[in-house]
Amino acid sequence: MNEGTYSTLIFDTLAHSLRERRPCALATIITGKGVRSKLLVAAGAKALGSLGNTEIDRIIERDALGELAAGSSSVRHYGSNGEAGEQDIQVFIETFAPPPRMIIFGAVGFTAALSRAAKLLGYRVTICDARATFATSARFPEADEVVNEWPDRFLLALTDELRPQDAICVLTHDHKFDIPAIAAALETQVGYIGAMGSRRTHEERVKLLREAGVADPALARVMAPIGLDIGSRTPEETAIAICAEIIAVRAGRNSIQSLRDSSGPIHI
Amino acid sequence: MNEGTYSTLIFDTLAHSLRERRPCALATIITGKGVRSKLLVAAGAKALGSLGNTEIDRIIERDALGELAAGSSSVRHYGSNGEAGEQDIQVFIETFAPPPRMIIFGAVGFTAALSRAAKLLGYRVTICDARATFATSARFPEADEVVNEWPDRFLLALTDELRPQDAICVLTHDHKFDIPAIAAALETQVGYIGAMGSRRTHEERVKLLREAGVADPALARVMAPIGLDIGSRTPEETAIAICAEIIAVRAGRNSIQSLRDSSGPIHI
Repeated sequence: MNEGTYSTLIFDTLAHSLRERRPCALATIITGKGVRSKLLVAAGAKALGSLGNTEIDRIIERDALGELAAGSSSVRHYGSNGEAGEQDIQVFIETFAPPPRMIIFGAVGFTAALSRAAKLLGYRVTICDARATFATSARFPEADEVVNEWPDRFLLALTDELRPQDAICVLTHDHKFDIPAIAAALETQVGYIGAMGSRRTHEERVKLLREAGVADPALARVMAPIGLDIGSRTPEETAIAICAEIIAVRAGRNSIQSLRDSSGPIHI
Repeated sequence: MNEGTYSTLIFDTLAHSLRERRPCALATIITGKGVRSKLLVAAGAKALGSLGNTEIDRIIERDALGELAAGSSSVRHYGSNGEAGEQDIQVFIETFAPPPRMIIFGAVGFTAALSRAAKLLGYRVTICDARATFATSARFPEADEVVNEWPDRFLLALTDELRPQDAICVLTHDHKFDIPAIAAALETQVGYIGAMGSRRTHEERVKLLREAGVADPALARVMAPIGLDIGSRTPEETAIAICAEIIAVRAGRNSIQSLRDSSGPIHI
């Protein structure tokens, strides 16, 4: 198949995926050897096209699936056979998928730092707090939206929309808001639910959630106290611990080491 | 001691610390009960002043020492006895200390994401790459400075200045730059040295560093492959894994769980 045939097939498939709202990512060499070559990838499907050889295709397919899952697009650099850390070619990986969402309940002191870290990871960030004096766009300029609403009412309208790549973080520290927020979060398919507060606060929450009829297997989805146990001291460090936990939960890691001390592949 | 006496003592001590370049943090209640009360903290010294009672003083001293160690200032919210997650009082914690530094060697694809994450944590970020075409301020607007220089020559000028709260990240992936960068980093007192690359690349580096006369205890300081093993897929997720590792190394954590599954205090 020559380049022209490939491109037609790629553009037809891309058009079809977009019409069907099926997420996909298109990788294009934008500078260097093989410029304009394309590779179209989608989860669970064979990649279409080629960037030059099977080795570079394998590496870019892996990275494009990573960007796709994160809902992000980027320009990345490689050696001419896909080597990391080299700069022979530039590849633009363009993702056609809605970004993952993070919904943060509670316009509290930790919220701004978590919003900033979540934006770094490409999330569409919504802050929701029923208390209108705290939840203002001026206080959280990094958030995509700030909503004044009760958490359960807000989530009810989204229950069918939220997906495994989305995350819900409950930072309110007030049973009045936390309990309905967690109960409603457990009705969604989000891949991550975390709740801030001391171990004692969470024991009380578990008791109240059980009384409200939430079953134990559902409660096991809640990461609380929120975040990895890395010894965070500031709101910003706590935000890093939360984001690292979200990534680790998605990858199914529950006992984490430095890459130096682990033995698996460094890319998944 | 009345409020006036406290303030005089605090301001005198603050002035003295500033003159002596001794890092300290001043916490002031800026809204709510006890407004204008102050607490001055420094590592290894008794706190001066009071925000109302011993309980709130203990909590704010802990948080102010955290901000001080991170070199950051922030407005934080508490209950009137220092309770987390409440908003009765606002406290401005102002740190009088230079920010920690992160020096990133290599203007590569991962560098921009790591710079952004490091800025979130309050680092003064320097990107250093001997290759002038890659290392430009336009490519890295988030960095505080972009330097075209050989890594060892750049670090030599800073050896005595760098401190345990500083970090060096080697992302170059090229022995020609990596080996002098790591060797020079090991001559500093920085608290974190990480190097990107595959396990095989790092084995080669270790061999070359040994040949260059670096001893094994020194080599054990190098975190490579860089970052926590959380299953990162994108440059941004890798940046989170690196920042989480920096925090964990500082706290002496080498086997990390979610706070949900660990049993220690959630604040250190």
